[in-house]
Amino acid sequence: MSIHALKRHQCNLAWDNSIPPVVRIVSGDQVTFDCLDASNGQLSPESTASSIGAMELSLCDQVNGPVYVEGADVGDTLQVDVLSIENADWGWTALIPGFGLLTDEYPAPALKIWKLNHKEGFAWFNEAKGMKIPLRPFAGEMGVAPGKKGSFSTIPPYPTGGNIDTKHVTVGSTLYLPIEVEGALFSIGDGHAAQGDGEVCGTAIETPMKVTVRLTVRKDKSYTKTPHFSTSISSSDEEYYCTTGVDSDIKEATRSAVRNMIEFLVTEYELDKVDAYMLCSVAGDLRMHEVVDMPNYVIGMMMPKSVLGEKA
Amino acid sequence: MSIHALKRHQCNLAWDNSIPPVVRIVSGDQVTFDCLDASNGQLSPESTASSIGAMELSLCDQVNGPVYVEGADVGDTLQVDVLSIENADWGWTALIPGFGLLTDEYPAPALKIWKLNHKEGFAWFNEAKGMKIPLRPFAGEMGVAPGKKGSFSTIPPYPTGGNIDTKHVTVGSTLYLPIEVEGALFSIGDGHAAQGDGEVCGTAIETPMKVTVRLTVRKDKSYTKTPHFSTSISSSDEEYYCTTGVDSDIKEATRSAVRNMIEFLVTEYELDKVDAYMLCSVAGDLRMHEVVDMPNYVIGMMMPKSVLGEKA
Repeated sequence: MSIHALKRHQCNLAWDNSIPPVVRIVSGDQVTFDCLDASNGQLSPESTASSIGAMELSLCDQVNGPVYVEGADVGDTLQVDVLSIENADWGWTALIPGFGLLTDEYPAPALKIWKLNHKEGFAWFNEAKGMKIPLRPFAGEMGVAPGKKGSFSTIPPYPTGGNIDTKHVTVGSTLYLPIEVEGALFSIGDGHAAQGDGEVCGTAIETPMKVTVRLTVRKDKSYTKTPHFSTSISSSDEEYYCTTGVDSDIKEATRSAVRNMIEFLVTEYELDKVDAYMLCSVAGDLRMHEVVDMPNYVIGMMMPKSVLGEKA
Repeated sequence: MSIHALKRHQCNLAWDNSIPPVVRIVSGDQVTFDCLDASNGQLSPESTASSIGAMELSLCDQVNGPVYVEGADVGDTLQVDVLSIENADWGWTALIPGFGLLTDEYPAPALKIWKLNHKEGFAWFNEAKGMKIPLRPFAGEMGVAPGKKGSFSTIPPYPTGGNIDTKHVTVGSTLYLPIEVEGALFSIGDGHAAQGDGEVCGTAIETPMKVTVRLTVRKDKSYTKTPHFSTSISSSDEEYYCTTGVDSDIKEATRSAVRNMIEFLVTEYELDKVDAYMLCSVAGDLRMHEVVDMPNYVIGMMMPKSVLGEKA
């Protein structure tokens, strides 16, 4: 097993399978990525709301990579184990005109700079009122190159991942991505110190981040057609297996998440399809992981592992 | 404080403000409702899939009530404290043609009968595989009469509640409903022994239920325009305050849930609107509580109370 490191400047502004890899690794290797925040370094702790107007949006949401994984073939699954994350001691949250679920009702740019207390694991939202955010860092962007030729924006999420902005894929979690090109061509970025399901104003606590992942080629999970992940919720001991749907229509994304969970249960637990569908109804949770990275939504179907018995 | 009791037959098949109340109570009184399951007694532990085809759908989803609460005026809020729930020792889950998120892919009726082990708090889904469902009973239907004249189906949820099918409103939880007619005219039904967020196949573990609630008129929560609730998630110690959006368009329901949380934070915590919007983005969870009771969806914005400091 080898350990590799990517630098800040080794990044791109598109998902494009013609971008040459910056490193080639063996399945099971670890890679550390040093990532700027999603503004690509355009914002700093001294920035103000006026910095948002001056920001060049076409430079935002860069992703570091791509990493070529030897032995990764079309139709395989890339297993991404998130091993460690280090954030900077500051972050930002912004309202960016044209971006966010209620952008028509909040047209003016706004910026909040956060001080991140990593030692105690929180950031004050409002110290006077005793309101604080627990820090649960994760990378908002994790994806592999699409099979289709062309250059695709890093703003929307895709079935191959990308800007899935899913708060549950944090340290200790495992993400599974469908491989569409030889070598997988994995990239990562968009450090978040904390976020809620939905990321409704369009940004999280955005922050520079060093993230280390283990990348493993899986030949045995070919049912993975969208991002799947395995995680635990930090406020409890409950663990979940989650399938996602990614679509420009929320209902279709929702249907896809459920369909994918059914397929997972049928494949991994040898359930009858109807039984699996019922199990989703009585024990699985649909959550809107992300509703702001247009034109696609990410909906998750989260199944508590305790429901699934010994094998989970 | 008085205690009242409603019987099984004291139920209706519509939300309609012209239905006369069966009991008049004082704000703060307790009421116990003895409710048949959502099939209105048409299914039993001996039923099979063929019973689904024979079932009269127009008799389903009855609600027990209505209860007139003295002092409840238009524009007030009805506080519903769920005090206790007793389920039968059996339940059912069905695929009903034309009903459920994937009904086009699952056209055939199906029925599963459950044995509910209340002492140990679970029901086997598949004992051989060690798969079991923790029981977390709640009433799928809780609502007040609409202000609009007419007779409205008990299948869809409305801003006044009804079939919200929200698994988090269980014993110990408090539901808030906007009052649109004098006396509120509260009804309840649709016993569920367990359900996931979304209730995707269209039914939960449906079961007969005795539920006791305390009904209190609140003059100080006029921002309640859709169902709000306060709950804790049983697998952890985290408590949440949740606002909902109810709409036939998922995106509009989502926007409404967020808008309502902002209004809650502005009203109760004296936050600036922009700050409140950001707080939703970094700490609030959007969950799809219900996606099958057409034509309306219920989306929830859940805020951990620990984020909100001392006042929560």
